[in-house]
Amino acid sequence: MKLGIIGLGKMGNSIAYRALIEGHDVFGFDIDKDSLKHAQEIGVKVSSSLSELVLYSEVIWLMLPAGKIIDETIEKFLPDLNNKKIIVDGGNSNFQDSVLRFQKLKKLGIEFLDCGVSGGLQGREIGFCLMIGGQKSAFEQVVPIFESISAKNGFAYMGPSGSGHYVKMVHNGIEYALLQAYSEGFNILKNSEYRLNLEKISDVWLHGSIIRSWILELTHKIFLKDQDFKGISGQIGGGQTGAWAIQEAYKLGLNSPLIEKSLEIRQLSQKTGGDYGTKLVALLRHEFGGHEVKKID
Amino acid sequence: MKLGIIGLGKMGNSIAYRALIEGHDVFGFDIDKDSLKHAQEIGVKVSSSLSELVLYSEVIWLMLPAGKIIDETIEKFLPDLNNKKIIVDGGNSNFQDSVLRFQKLKKLGIEFLDCGVSGGLQGREIGFCLMIGGQKSAFEQVVPIFESISAKNGFAYMGPSGSGHYVKMVHNGIEYALLQAYSEGFNILKNSEYRLNLEKISDVWLHGSIIRSWILELTHKIFLKDQDFKGISGQIGGGQTGAWAIQEAYKLGLNSPLIEKSLEIRQLSQKTGGDYGTKLVALLRHEFGGHEVKKID
Repeated sequence: MKLGIIGLGKMGNSIAYRALIEGHDVFGFDIDKDSLKHAQEIGVKVSSSLSELVLYSEVIWLMLPAGKIIDETIEKFLPDLNNKKIIVDGGNSNFQDSVLRFQKLKKLGIEFLDCGVSGGLQGREIGFCLMIGGQKSAFEQVVPIFESISAKNGFAYMGPSGSGHYVKMVHNGIEYALLQAYSEGFNILKNSEYRLNLEKISDVWLHGSIIRSWILELTHKIFLKDQDFKGISGQIGGGQTGAWAIQEAYKLGLNSPLIEKSLEIRQLSQKTGGDYGTKLVALLRHEFGGHEVKKID
Repeated sequence: MKLGIIGLGKMGNSIAYRALIEGHDVFGFDIDKDSLKHAQEIGVKVSSSLSELVLYSEVIWLMLPAGKIIDETIEKFLPDLNNKKIIVDGGNSNFQDSVLRFQKLKKLGIEFLDCGVSGGLQGREIGFCLMIGGQKSAFEQVVPIFESISAKNGFAYMGPSGSGHYVKMVHNGIEYALLQAYSEGFNILKNSEYRLNLEKISDVWLHGSIIRSWILELTHKIFLKDQDFKGISGQIGGGQTGAWAIQEAYKLGLNSPLIEKSLEIRQLSQKTGGDYGTKLVALLRHEFGGHEVKKID
């Protein structure tokens, strides 16, 4: 298919890459010159304007930060759209915003899908996990793209508009708590009077234990390089989607104390610089998401 | 090797099974007649007394509940021991108790290893994850047994006496928080205004997402059978090793808020009967540990 990607950062570039190797025609646009250059190097046909990208594309994939920039970008290319084009928002947008966008575009006869994308940097090679919401018929039209971008069996239709980003929001909440759970454990092990080898422990846990996981695999990768984390700040960034998950839990009359606590620890770490445990979380976020880890003296 | 297992419950039986299929000579003792019968059926040579078991075994493997029963059992067969025998405690004993037992037996010239065992019911077929503490030379003598019982690359020497149970204690603390993290997420999804299919969501998350894990695989297995959890109590049992992990964190001047909160939720669920989320945790504990799930009207 003809896929136009707007936003060619780390994730946008990986999505372009996967679509290209599966034989799709990929067009790309980004305001950042370096991102454009990197995309061109892997075979993306770089557009000089949004209008040009929209003209050539059947599916327009937004890979942008959540918020106003999504609306502003759609606004810009809206005059160039016709009812044969489908827009996919692959970012971490708020699901309620996605519903509003869906409704607005529906009136103009344009389909809008919200697609949560999980998998991080490693998704480039093994494929992503895609959670998709919107009109079922629009979803079905984009299946060839989803199939190419996703890991094997790694995409699914979640339901009406917003449900893709909704499920991704909850996924991220779970992710925060999982990261924090491992971090608490390794913090105890690191500080133990037993002089324990965390590389060895994370390795043996990957083989047959109840707590084996993808995050534990990345943890082991980190410990293979270093276990001391000297010169690294324990400040953990991110947190928006987790905050939404907590709000949604409240709205439903539920508690989500672990997700809440994990977010609180992230916020606190920004002020205090965190500890060994939050350093591990920051390094894990770097490992799977390429998020910055601050250096300290 | 000649392996004598004392305690032939679910876990003891699985350890016997794995040792047998790898060609070891397995002797067994249990006060429960049914457990003895099941063990005999898979080829365990059942002993009529502890003395007999100790006489035939090179390695004596205790698979008993934590606490006094370990000391009482060792006390009973102590007269039959000689310095060629090695005792392994494969249960969830407190690491400090293990150190005391090690010291006491050391004076008598008898080796004692503490071995944390993870993997649950599924370990029977795929092998367990073993974390072993004690004298290195004793560990090395028992390697043929550890190799047979464990998953591939699933055993490792952790350090001095107590370190095996120490690492398992922290493992269990992490496990509590991981279970609770997924449970919070699926609780939100279940109660969402979107009528979401949790079987589908847990399935797609297993393919390429950041939060894929063994626990998520078991979660998906549960949802394949049922998503409503009607007639099931949300009371979560267990909690001893997690409580020790929290105490140890305090002793080291650390916080472990997620492990603490998870334990609190378990305790509260005993009084209130819990919610959809704690039902999932109870079902997961049943899935991997065979722990009872109470039925309600």
